[in-house]
Amino acid sequence: MQGTVLYGPRDIRFEERTEPKIEQPTDAILRLAATCICGSDLWPYRGIQRVEQSMPMGHEYCGIVEEVGGAVKTVKPGQFVIGSFFASDNTCPNCRIGYQSSCEHREFIGTAQAPVLRVPLADGTLVATPEVPSKDLIPSLLAVSDVMGTGWFAADAANVKPGSTVVVVGDGAVGLLGILSAKQMGAERIIAMSRHEKRQKLAREFGATDIVSERGDEGVTRIKELTKGIGADSVLECVGTQESMTQAIGSVRKGGYTSYVGVPHGVELNGETLFYAHVHLHGGPAPVRRFIPKLIDLVWNRKINPGKVFDLTLPLAQVAEGYRAMDERRAIKTLLYPNGTN
Amino acid sequence: MQGTVLYGPRDIRFEERTEPKIEQPTDAILRLAATCICGSDLWPYRGIQRVEQSMPMGHEYCGIVEEVGGAVKTVKPGQFVIGSFFASDNTCPNCRIGYQSSCEHREFIGTAQAPVLRVPLADGTLVATPEVPSKDLIPSLLAVSDVMGTGWFAADAANVKPGSTVVVVGDGAVGLLGILSAKQMGAERIIAMSRHEKRQKLAREFGATDIVSERGDEGVTRIKELTKGIGADSVLECVGTQESMTQAIGSVRKGGYTSYVGVPHGVELNGETLFYAHVHLHGGPAPVRRFIPKLIDLVWNRKINPGKVFDLTLPLAQVAEGYRAMDERRAIKTLLYPNGTN
Repeated sequence: MQGTVLYGPRDIRFEERTEPKIEQPTDAILRLAATCICGSDLWPYRGIQRVEQSMPMGHEYCGIVEEVGGAVKTVKPGQFVIGSFFASDNTCPNCRIGYQSSCEHREFIGTAQAPVLRVPLADGTLVATPEVPSKDLIPSLLAVSDVMGTGWFAADAANVKPGSTVVVVGDGAVGLLGILSAKQMGAERIIAMSRHEKRQKLAREFGATDIVSERGDEGVTRIKELTKGIGADSVLECVGTQESMTQAIGSVRKGGYTSYVGVPHGVELNGETLFYAHVHLHGGPAPVRRFIPKLIDLVWNRKINPGKVFDLTLPLAQVAEGYRAMDERRAIKTLLYPNGTN
Repeated sequence: MQGTVLYGPRDIRFEERTEPKIEQPTDAILRLAATCICGSDLWPYRGIQRVEQSMPMGHEYCGIVEEVGGAVKTVKPGQFVIGSFFASDNTCPNCRIGYQSSCEHREFIGTAQAPVLRVPLADGTLVATPEVPSKDLIPSLLAVSDVMGTGWFAADAANVKPGSTVVVVGDGAVGLLGILSAKQMGAERIIAMSRHEKRQKLAREFGATDIVSERGDEGVTRIKELTKGIGADSVLECVGTQESMTQAIGSVRKGGYTSYVGVPHGVELNGETLFYAHVHLHGGPAPVRRFIPKLIDLVWNRKINPGKVFDLTLPLAQVAEGYRAMDERRAIKTLLYPNGTN
């Protein structure tokens, strides 16, 4: 088969790779209905995260089970399934309290920009949809695999409740779906920090009530103005830089909650600043698996349409163009169909 | 009157100071039954926190109301009252959600190692006991003013629940009362990190089930061994140094909670470490006012005896010896009686 490999900064190739096979009795092999490019894929693509050797790419996926190992009990060939970027057994102590992305036996799934994918710990990792979905649901179901689950975790970790005032820092796909999640959780006011017209439009569609285009100290000042000087109850930090984190912590009210779901790159937090901010801080690799059943349900019943974040759709063979478009911010998020079209 | 003044490192003097008077109509004047020396007083005493000019000391107090300003409505002369180190109006948005130590009108009370004290925002700040207490209750009621309230906040902010496994980093008075608080909240296992025999004994008396004397990486390893490799549900960081914070974050389970209640001195937290720790982090200046009514009740009904942390009692005039004893770790905490004896 042909799959996606990153060789170095901005050097993405679609080339022959060995088709995955069952390696462990707990594995499943999926034929993917769709995959996509994540904002976090841009870190190594841009060379900010160093690439020591060529590496396959992709960690978002959904598709049909082709084959399962001998120890797989619940997942069956023919099912349409969704999993997260960390395979998890869903039975260890960390999984049991809902932190499957810290599963004691977790394995990162990093080869999903391909037509066929091996998923370890299949029973713990994969969740089947009620039946094979209609094609129009595929983008939103694919979003559940990571970006929707991560946006949901951002809102959950920031303690969004009915009536909350929420700020979302970052207008990438995760930030936009953090808005959608906050709306679903009953937030009364959702302030999106964005300076891109197209993303502002989608932010409003997902539930944003206000847009703030200022950044840094000016952004914080604007949030304070909009919240009677108090700050927001919940702030979702969906970028992962020092600037965005500082902005997020500056925007939250005393006793409020800041979540962070993008891998922090070079972020250092001063203890005394956190102390006097009186902030609750929580984040980490989103335990998407915790939310998949609920999110499938919301998509299946057409309550949410997170697939709207895909504003570029390409055949998988054109994956390199997909990266370029996101790198140049021409696209929010690129959907890739292994079979060329949906 | 005579009161306590710090002139520079290890230079504490008990000298003539102007007796406080009502300055604002919201003030009250208290004649103190007792005051004490806080672990945080040692930061400037030791010169770690720089003292630019001579300053009065003390922020823990309880006593009888002597006089109130014209705008004070609920606090009455003759009442025995307790307040926290931050005066708070108890009505602003920050107070209303329980963060009175971030009150929009907060004022630090820093002149309490004296016989007479002015308390601003008296109605918001002070809580009266049911009646004037018997003398044997004074130490525990005084503890409610700060160290007991701070220990309680540490346990509350670390989400201690019935059945929790708890680690307490720091065996000062706050750490010890964090143990007592965790016990009251139903923790099943409480691991005290301490290497001082006298403090270990009090830790056990307050509810510690295990003692770990190792520190740093060794301490973390020991905690992991005691928790089947998982880490603790809740970790209370009651010191405020880089080492103690690192130890606290290393000891918590994935998805667990770390609280920090001592002013962090030179602490920097790496974003990526926090991210992969999957920890909930919360702390700040303890909003003691939130807990005073409940804690008075527990002391009044003799359910808790936090006054046991005072292992040295002196007449206020000997305050300098009180500082020396704590500095040299001969005493955990020094109680001071303005009238010489209780």
